[in-house]
Amino acid sequence: MSLQFEIEANTGKARTGRLITAHGEVETPVFMPVGTLASVKGVPQDLLEELGIQILLGNTYHLYLRPGVQTVQQLGGLHRFMAWPRAILTDSGGFQVFSLNDLRKVSEEGVAFRSHLDGSSHLFTPESAMSAQIGLGADIIMAFDECTEYPAERARMQQSMELTLRWAARSKRYFEQHKEEVPWSGVRHAASGARQCNPTVGNRRPEAGSSQALFGIVQGGMDHALRKESAERTVEIGFPGYAIGGLSVGEPRDMTRDIVESTLEHLPAEKPRYLMGVGTPEEIVEYAHLGIDMMDCVLPTRAARHGLLFTSEGKVSIKQARYAADEQPPDPNCGCRVCRRYSRAYLRHLYASNEVLAQVLNTVHNLSFYLDTMRAVRHSIRLGAKAPFLSSE
Amino acid sequence: MSLQFEIEANTGKARTGRLITAHGEVETPVFMPVGTLASVKGVPQDLLEELGIQILLGNTYHLYLRPGVQTVQQLGGLHRFMAWPRAILTDSGGFQVFSLNDLRKVSEEGVAFRSHLDGSSHLFTPESAMSAQIGLGADIIMAFDECTEYPAERARMQQSMELTLRWAARSKRYFEQHKEEVPWSGVRHAASGARQCNPTVGNRRPEAGSSQALFGIVQGGMDHALRKESAERTVEIGFPGYAIGGLSVGEPRDMTRDIVESTLEHLPAEKPRYLMGVGTPEEIVEYAHLGIDMMDCVLPTRAARHGLLFTSEGKVSIKQARYAADEQPPDPNCGCRVCRRYSRAYLRHLYASNEVLAQVLNTVHNLSFYLDTMRAVRHSIRLGAKAPFLSSE
Repeated sequence: MSLQFEIEANTGKARTGRLITAHGEVETPVFMPVGTLASVKGVPQDLLEELGIQILLGNTYHLYLRPGVQTVQQLGGLHRFMAWPRAILTDSGGFQVFSLNDLRKVSEEGVAFRSHLDGSSHLFTPESAMSAQIGLGADIIMAFDECTEYPAERARMQQSMELTLRWAARSKRYFEQHKEEVPWSGVRHAASGARQCNPTVGNRRPEAGSSQALFGIVQGGMDHALRKESAERTVEIGFPGYAIGGLSVGEPRDMTRDIVESTLEHLPAEKPRYLMGVGTPEEIVEYAHLGIDMMDCVLPTRAARHGLLFTSEGKVSIKQARYAADEQPPDPNCGCRVCRRYSRAYLRHLYASNEVLAQVLNTVHNLSFYLDTMRAVRHSIRLGAKAPFLSSE
Repeated sequence: MSLQFEIEANTGKARTGRLITAHGEVETPVFMPVGTLASVKGVPQDLLEELGIQILLGNTYHLYLRPGVQTVQQLGGLHRFMAWPRAILTDSGGFQVFSLNDLRKVSEEGVAFRSHLDGSSHLFTPESAMSAQIGLGADIIMAFDECTEYPAERARMQQSMELTLRWAARSKRYFEQHKEEVPWSGVRHAASGARQCNPTVGNRRPEAGSSQALFGIVQGGMDHALRKESAERTVEIGFPGYAIGGLSVGEPRDMTRDIVESTLEHLPAEKPRYLMGVGTPEEIVEYAHLGIDMMDCVLPTRAARHGLLFTSEGKVSIKQARYAADEQPPDPNCGCRVCRRYSRAYLRHLYASNEVLAQVLNTVHNLSFYLDTMRAVRHSIRLGAKAPFLSSE
C-alpha cells in the first residue's frame, strides 16, 4: 500500500483527516513548508519537528542540480540525507523549469533547460523526472506536467493540457515499472551499512512493502471546461491523489478561487486533493474550506527573510523603525518560542543589522503561525463550525 | 557587591572556580562566545543556553552604532533587549576602533573615529566608553584602553601603555560616579513597565545592590618589563578583575604565550584574569593551564561561517568534496545536537549550496566543542590531573 487517506470529518465541502505515509501520519488539511534544497532555510530540523510539521516539500529541480539525485540516493534517500524522519513530498521539477528558465524548450519528449547555476544543459522528461523523484525517495511524488503560462489563448491552454495528460500517463507507466527502486524500499537496501549518526533519525525503516505514492496534476489554464476535462481524464489514468497545478501564476485571486472551486467538483472525494503553490494565511483557510487537503507555498519562509511577519493582528513589517523600541512580542497572541522570548525591538534590530538570526527567528514564527492556522482549521472542521478567519469577516 | 570570584581548586598554576555575577554564576576557566551585535550569529538564545553557555561577550563599538546605547538602555539593558538572562561582558570598544578604523585619531582625550557603516564621526573617551557600557548594562565591563599595534618600538609601547594607564584611572573614576545608572540597578527602574514577553527571560531582577564590575586591562606591547609595570600600576589603581590586552595582534604564538606567562606573575591570584581575543582549542587549554580564568574569541563562530569545524580528530573543512558522501557525523566523539543528527555529507551540501542552516549548525557544533573543551579542562584541574590536550602531546 503506497498511501492511505482517511477522512474523519466533513463540514460543508471541507474535510479533515489523515494521510498515512511510509514516514508517518499527516493530519489534513495540511500546509507543507518548502525545504527547497533539503533545508527549510535557516531552521534546524528539530525545531521543525517541535513546530509540529508532519510533511515537508522538497524541490526536485533544485535537488537534481545540488547535491544531485545520485548522491541523495546513495545516502539512503532524502529522509536520511537531511535527517528528517517524517513525510516528504517532492514536486516534479516542472514548475521550477517553468519559472526559473527563460530558455527552456518544450517538446513532446520533455523540457530541455539550462541550469540557473552554471548554464549546463539538461533534459527533464516524464521518465527522468520520475527517476529523479524515485531516487530522492519522497513519500509523495508528482507527475511531470507543463505549467501553462498566464494569460494564454484557449488553444494554447488545450494543447498544454493535452501534453500534461500524455506526460501523466508516461509518468505513471515509468513509476509503476520502477517504484521498487526507492532507496528505502523493503529488501533491496536491508543490508546496507548502518548510518553512524543516530539511526533513529531520518532512518526509520518504513513498513515492508510500503512505497511512494504518485499524484496526478490537473492543468487546463483558466478555462472551466478544460479544467473539467483535465480532471476527468487525469482521474481516468488513476492516481492515489490529485493536485491542482497551474494556479498562482499571476492571475487574479478571484479567478484562482473560481478555478479551484470548479475543479474540485470533478475530483473524487475519497482521494487527497492538493492545491499547489498557495497561499496567504487567509487563502489557505479559504481553500481548506473549499475541500482542499494539502497546500504548499514559499510565502511564510520567503516573507520571513524579507522581514514580513504574519500575526493574529495582521502583517508586521518588522524592519520598520516604528518597532525599534517596541517591547511587545511579534504576535501577542502567539505561543511560539520566538514570541515567548523576544521583542519586536530585538527582531527589528536583528533585521536592520543583517543578522542571520533574524531569518531564523522570523521563519520559525511564520511557520508557527501557518501551522497554528491549519490546526485551528482542522479543529473547526471537526467541530462543524466555520473557521476563525471566515467567521470574523 | 559587584562581583565575587571563588577559586575552588588549583593544579599547578591553573585554577578552577566560579564568578558570581548579577546574572548568574560562571564556572571558570571559561570561554566566552562572541555575540557582537547582541546575537551569536545564527544561533537562537535557547540553543546557547542548552550548550551551557554562562556568559556571552558583546561588542560596545558595534552596539554603540547599532542599535545604539540609548535604545538598549531604554529597553532595560542588553540582557533584557536580547532576552539573555545569564551573564554578559562587554569590551570597551577600544579594540574595534583599533581594528576596524584606519582613520582613527588618538589623543589624550580619546579616540576619534569614523563609523565603518556610514562614515559618521564619533569620539570614544574613557568617560564615553564607560557611559556606553553602563547603558548597555553588562555584568562585567572593561576599562577603555589603547591596543598597541605589533610590531612597535619600545618608546611607542611605553607611551601607549602610559596612555592606557591614565585612561584606566579615568575609566574607574567615571564608573564609580555613575555605576548606579545601570539599567537594571536596584530601585531606579523597579517601577518600569513589565515586559510583555515572558518576564522570566532576560528580565530576572538582579539582587538588590548588585552592580556591574569594571576590569582593568594590562598593555605594554611585547616587552616583559613594560608588561610588569603595566600590571603593577593597573593593580595599584585597583579593579575586581584584570585583563591582558594587546595580544593576538599578529605576533608569533610563542611570544603570546611568553607574555601571558610573565604578565600573570604580576596579577593578584585572588582576582579573575582574562586573556582577551584567544584562541584555538589547543591555545585555550594551554592558557587555562597557565592560570587564565576567562577567554573570548570569534574563532569558533567565524570559522563555522567559513565551513571550518573543530573536532576531536582535528579541523574538518566541511566544504571539501571529500565529504560529499560521508555519512559520519561531523565529530564521531561529540554528543552535540548537530553531531547526534546530521552527517558530514549533509553539512557539506548545506555549505556548498549557501544554505543559511550551514552557518547555524556549524556554529552550534563549534561552540559545543569549545564548551566541552573547557568543561574537560575544569574537570581535569579539579582532578589535579593534566588536561587531555596537554597529556596527549
